[in-house]
Amino acid sequence: MAYRGLIHKYGRRMAISQSATPITLFEGDTPLIDAPRISAWVGGGAKLWLKCEGMNPTGSFKDRGMTAAVTEAVHHGASALICASTGNTAASAAAYAARAGITCCVLIPEGKIAMGKLAGAAAYGAQILAIDGSFDAALELVRLAAERAPIALVNSVNPARLQGQKTAAWEIVEQLGRVPDLVCLPVGNAGNISAYWLGFCENSDRERPKMLGAQAEGAAPIVRGEIVREPETRATAIRIGNPARWLQAEDAVRESAGLILSVTDEEIFEAYHAVAELEGVFCEPSSAAGIAGLRKAMSNGDVDARERDVVCVLTGHGLKDPDSVFDGTPKVVRIGANLDELLRALASEAGVPA
Amino acid sequence: MAYRGLIHKYGRRMAISQSATPITLFEGDTPLIDAPRISAWVGGGAKLWLKCEGMNPTGSFKDRGMTAAVTEAVHHGASALICASTGNTAASAAAYAARAGITCCVLIPEGKIAMGKLAGAAAYGAQILAIDGSFDAALELVRLAAERAPIALVNSVNPARLQGQKTAAWEIVEQLGRVPDLVCLPVGNAGNISAYWLGFCENSDRERPKMLGAQAEGAAPIVRGEIVREPETRATAIRIGNPARWLQAEDAVRESAGLILSVTDEEIFEAYHAVAELEGVFCEPSSAAGIAGLRKAMSNGDVDARERDVVCVLTGHGLKDPDSVFDGTPKVVRIGANLDELLRALASEAGVPA
Repeated sequence: MAYRGLIHKYGRRMAISQSATPITLFEGDTPLIDAPRISAWVGGGAKLWLKCEGMNPTGSFKDRGMTAAVTEAVHHGASALICASTGNTAASAAAYAARAGITCCVLIPEGKIAMGKLAGAAAYGAQILAIDGSFDAALELVRLAAERAPIALVNSVNPARLQGQKTAAWEIVEQLGRVPDLVCLPVGNAGNISAYWLGFCENSDRERPKMLGAQAEGAAPIVRGEIVREPETRATAIRIGNPARWLQAEDAVRESAGLILSVTDEEIFEAYHAVAELEGVFCEPSSAAGIAGLRKAMSNGDVDARERDVVCVLTGHGLKDPDSVFDGTPKVVRIGANLDELLRALASEAGVPA
Repeated sequence: MAYRGLIHKYGRRMAISQSATPITLFEGDTPLIDAPRISAWVGGGAKLWLKCEGMNPTGSFKDRGMTAAVTEAVHHGASALICASTGNTAASAAAYAARAGITCCVLIPEGKIAMGKLAGAAAYGAQILAIDGSFDAALELVRLAAERAPIALVNSVNPARLQGQKTAAWEIVEQLGRVPDLVCLPVGNAGNISAYWLGFCENSDRERPKMLGAQAEGAAPIVRGEIVREPETRATAIRIGNPARWLQAEDAVRESAGLILSVTDEEIFEAYHAVAELEGVFCEPSSAAGIAGLRKAMSNGDVDARERDVVCVLTGHGLKDPDSVFDGTPKVVRIGANLDELLRALASEAGVPA
């Protein structure tokens, strides 16, 4: 039987309406790939695996929660969805709304996002509304609107989202054939670390992994123990100063005897380039925060994963944010259009003997 | 057993070195999703399925051929790869080279491509060389260089590429549970239609589908029966005037009793928007040429697929080319940051009753 998405596979273990017809784009079932070179780069002797969530249909892990949220919304009669977002959530909501044949409205904080980031949501036909205000203001408005008008809110406050997201933990256990010792992931709104922990706790195995969460230094409210009024990081997907699932993330870390730490943008971008160049896996900058955090924890001695199985979750595809590849302009070496010049360039630039 | 890429699954049925260690990013195993709304849009009563090849690791079908080509190259001792490319091939070659821990050089025709298109290849650490000349000139140079220097050529003239690509046909038969009646896909260099046909011919079922190939009107050498010196189309991935596998594509069409036809850019972009908005599947513009071709053939009466199974192959992810989403500027409706204005906008823009 061919794979047909999360709900077909795991629906009975998800707290959603059991009689609902799944709205699916065949999300989930993402690769868990071994990563020997990045293991060596991280150091400490751990064996790393990469959970490639960017290989979901819209290019990010958001599709897991969205299949559940949109299935539930449509089951309860919704003919329109709404969310506040500047990126991955909007694209995912728009895609599943299109799949369901219903309307999707996205409220964005004008001027806070690159127009290119809207391509996903716009492609799927979402109605894009903009306010002159912050993301927090946009979120507050869509919450109020969903109370007043017949439109379903699919931001991460929607409980079905967590139900879909937790399935990634079960996939990891199935793919690895055992429970990993440590799971590392970026922490922004903290929904994902909460969902993974929920999944591992609901898994039939008695073992549970330690959870390692990594925040960007300029947007590290949980690490600092206080709301960050003006979060700043080039890893835009985790630029959040007041996470919606703050307490659940703290629970996950405490209950798993794990840790949450912050990493600099420089450390995040080092990891981002390393995983692409050493393993051929291209992720969003923020996705690499888990790897950066693991590397830091290894060198600090905060974790000791020698000979143990470590999973780093890469939350989104690098194609979501191609501009981050180049620091300034791309390095292109211009040569004359003849064989001699090409052979010389191959020797000098790539070490290929002529 | 968790899925571990094409060669682990199909290697014994591929004409490649059987003792080679697979270089894999867990490509293949892409979704085949039902598409009721786009079926109705295409018309003619056919039941459509979408083979979502954009869900390969680097975002295009090229990864299927590349895992085979790079596995073979590394098995024979290559420590560097080379290709001429302006897009998907370069990203795929760079990713698999990174995965293998070897060097990748990409030769591009300077000025003929947007810098954004290089993000993929650059991310994976490829060395990018540029000439002042055409793609054809670049291809000729890399062929010569590969004869002279110890560097493996992975352009589609490499026979292993076809061996990897043909596996998509086998997946379709497995996922559908039967051989489809008609398979539609875009034709640029014609490697893909040739590979699918090879796969169906090597399949154990006696049935074979008809093959429908679609070229862009301004780049339709096979339809016109002559080389197009200056091919033009906004579907850049199929902007090719002299296809490398021209004769094989003609064989596939003739042997399958299929057809090859041309579609206008307008028809391609209509299909591109329709599949995203009606099904929530975002593909590259060129990927939609197969759907556009099917629609045209249905309305012309060239095919009659009533009640029959039709597979349209979507060759690359829409995130590969986000600029194509917007015709000019994105449509964003600005509103004041208050609930009343939001409710009014939801009513007027999205038909949500206040």
